[in-house]
Amino acid sequence: MAELFEDLDPPQRLLMGPGPINAHPRVLQAMAAPLLGQFDPKFREYMKQASALYRGVFQTANRWTLLVDGTARAGIEAALVSLIEPGDRVLIPVFGRFGHLLAEIARRAGAEVRTIETEWGTVFTDEQLSRAFLELRPKIVAVCHGDTSTTMAQPLEALGRLCRGNDALLYVDATATLGGMDLPVDRWQLDVVSAGLQKCMGGPSGCAPLTLNERAEKRILRRRHIEEGIRDKNYKAGDGPMIASNYFDLAMIMDYWSDKALNHHTEATTMLYAARECARVVLGEGLPAVFARHARASQAISAGLSAMGLKLFGDPRHKMANVTGVYIPQGVDGDRARRALLEEHDIEIGTSFGPLHGKIWRIGTMGVNATEDAILRTLRALEQVLAAQNFKLPAGAGAAAAAAGWRG
Amino acid sequence: MAELFEDLDPPQRLLMGPGPINAHPRVLQAMAAPLLGQFDPKFREYMKQASALYRGVFQTANRWTLLVDGTARAGIEAALVSLIEPGDRVLIPVFGRFGHLLAEIARRAGAEVRTIETEWGTVFTDEQLSRAFLELRPKIVAVCHGDTSTTMAQPLEALGRLCRGNDALLYVDATATLGGMDLPVDRWQLDVVSAGLQKCMGGPSGCAPLTLNERAEKRILRRRHIEEGIRDKNYKAGDGPMIASNYFDLAMIMDYWSDKALNHHTEATTMLYAARECARVVLGEGLPAVFARHARASQAISAGLSAMGLKLFGDPRHKMANVTGVYIPQGVDGDRARRALLEEHDIEIGTSFGPLHGKIWRIGTMGVNATEDAILRTLRALEQVLAAQNFKLPAGAGAAAAAAGWRG
Repeated sequence: MAELFEDLDPPQRLLMGPGPINAHPRVLQAMAAPLLGQFDPKFREYMKQASALYRGVFQTANRWTLLVDGTARAGIEAALVSLIEPGDRVLIPVFGRFGHLLAEIARRAGAEVRTIETEWGTVFTDEQLSRAFLELRPKIVAVCHGDTSTTMAQPLEALGRLCRGNDALLYVDATATLGGMDLPVDRWQLDVVSAGLQKCMGGPSGCAPLTLNERAEKRILRRRHIEEGIRDKNYKAGDGPMIASNYFDLAMIMDYWSDKALNHHTEATTMLYAARECARVVLGEGLPAVFARHARASQAISAGLSAMGLKLFGDPRHKMANVTGVYIPQGVDGDRARRALLEEHDIEIGTSFGPLHGKIWRIGTMGVNATEDAILRTLRALEQVLAAQNFKLPAGAGAAAAAAGWRG
Repeated sequence: MAELFEDLDPPQRLLMGPGPINAHPRVLQAMAAPLLGQFDPKFREYMKQASALYRGVFQTANRWTLLVDGTARAGIEAALVSLIEPGDRVLIPVFGRFGHLLAEIARRAGAEVRTIETEWGTVFTDEQLSRAFLELRPKIVAVCHGDTSTTMAQPLEALGRLCRGNDALLYVDATATLGGMDLPVDRWQLDVVSAGLQKCMGGPSGCAPLTLNERAEKRILRRRHIEEGIRDKNYKAGDGPMIASNYFDLAMIMDYWSDKALNHHTEATTMLYAARECARVVLGEGLPAVFARHARASQAISAGLSAMGLKLFGDPRHKMANVTGVYIPQGVDGDRARRALLEEHDIEIGTSFGPLHGKIWRIGTMGVNATEDAILRTLRALEQVLAAQNFKLPAGAGAAAAAAGWRG
């Protein structure tokens, strides 16, 4: 007899790391809804609704606004492998770990990649981006909006103008900011943007909303192919090089999402239910209110941590609203503190990667957890954990300053 | 104000197509469970449990038994792109649409693909496979176990011996049969096998269980690379060619699932909960009982359809237990009948692809729907729908024969 293990009963954690975070209760409920066939008229209607809802979230009129069935990283790879033709020059400004990821994915897609780097905790000036662009004259620029590894958000408006004015395509990874910071895709002239649900959108990982405009569509449709098993006699392949991946072939995924409804993958019904509900939650609150709440959360947690005698990481002018980096104080064992938070308080905060490993913690305040209550609970627990490691700090000062910060 | 659409409330369909089918209620419940961080000790425990459970389902001792975050097609692509090095000779026996899919994915991965084909509705003899193999001497053979497009299941035991004896790797797409038909991975000497949840496993699409043995591991680890953002100083890349996809790089996914827990994607928590529960349901019933139930369902639906004067499709000796093809009778509009089943009876059955389009319907009897009740309800509704199109058939004969067939 096979070992079946216990009934599923995860502990009730407060997830205050850089993501995943707690899902909104309405999203969890949506995922328990009964399944539908992928060509059921009602399911196709839900797909259309999901497109419309994510047009709202992305602030775009793009027809092609759809979901890629995989984690946020799947959305990145779908965008890059569908845009990049082998040998294309691609510029990637790297200001943290996820910039390196973009470079690595672009290289595997056959791009001739040029990266520029800036110290972790800073972003690029418009001049730096412009200089690198004009030197390389890339076909494609790929960049993160917010990189959780450094808690920095890169301003994109000037880069959008630059790419548009010079006939380059701009891809933006907005996994970490969508639904938490303003990202007006059309106004900023971003050609392709992808994201995930597990950060500010308040859902589980496993679904990547993606939007692309007509400039990107034109490039992708040159490479359109239809699978041998389902071609009809009128089929004519595009004259561009075949996209290297079938699963991430956006031309095929567009055919699947269009009224043609050409079979490709079997849509992940439950994740689509989740994505649809995430967008309804965010748009129901209203984007301006959502962004303001995340900004308040950032103020509150920053004020609280500072009042506790901790030092914030990175350039405050470019800090993401939804993730805050803070130095682990001297004499404190960072991993032990995180473990104590989890085991004694059921609160998760984040460690860090690369050059910041062991130096900073990262605290997320996003989605359902961008609230005064979640922040105060986290700071009080952190105070207790730090005190247990003999770090001297003024009792209650963190929570008081955070409450004041929350009120503005 | 953005349009928010109505609350999620999908109709209660009985999904009797070739998949997706209805999820087991316990699986739906599991997906409403609270999220955990991906490095939470409890979550890592659930990952280990999922590995152990799928070892049971795949009947394997393979250490590397894990989940790929995407639909069944994602599992196929992860297997093929990680195994195939550009220029490799790959043999693909095609007996339906999903064989063509394997060929297309293998070609995109840079393989030199040779396909052999057999008429839809038949499978290959051991001799045909052996002849093609010895002629091509491929490095890899990729084949479907069951191809829902034709309802046929390919015998694999001799092919397993052939590949093992000639130093080729055998990949099997078991999406359509896992949890419905016997698939002893180790005994049949299958090197890599992937599947999905949305067929006999009784879950939603969006997660691909995959298992690979030490022969496959050896090939994949030659190509191991670690992302630039998270390498440590002891890192040494494999000397094989880099895998063309980051998302589907099984060497990275193995590092993520191992105790090293190297960051890669953010595990799709909810889909992992679903996959874990699917396996608990299947193993809880017991594999022999599950297979016997699917075999009974096949007998019942076949007997019922025949008694209604309908003709079954394909070679009955190699029919999948969980999908049945049946010719659309002369004078009946197949799409109109399917629409009537859906709209008037809330029952979905499948259309078909390619050479069978417009000729056969495909009826699934799998997972929670491999029951007498679901079969009788489907046959009674089909009788009513056929009668409405003036197809003469003996009243009640289908259900009576199916009930007798169910009893054996």
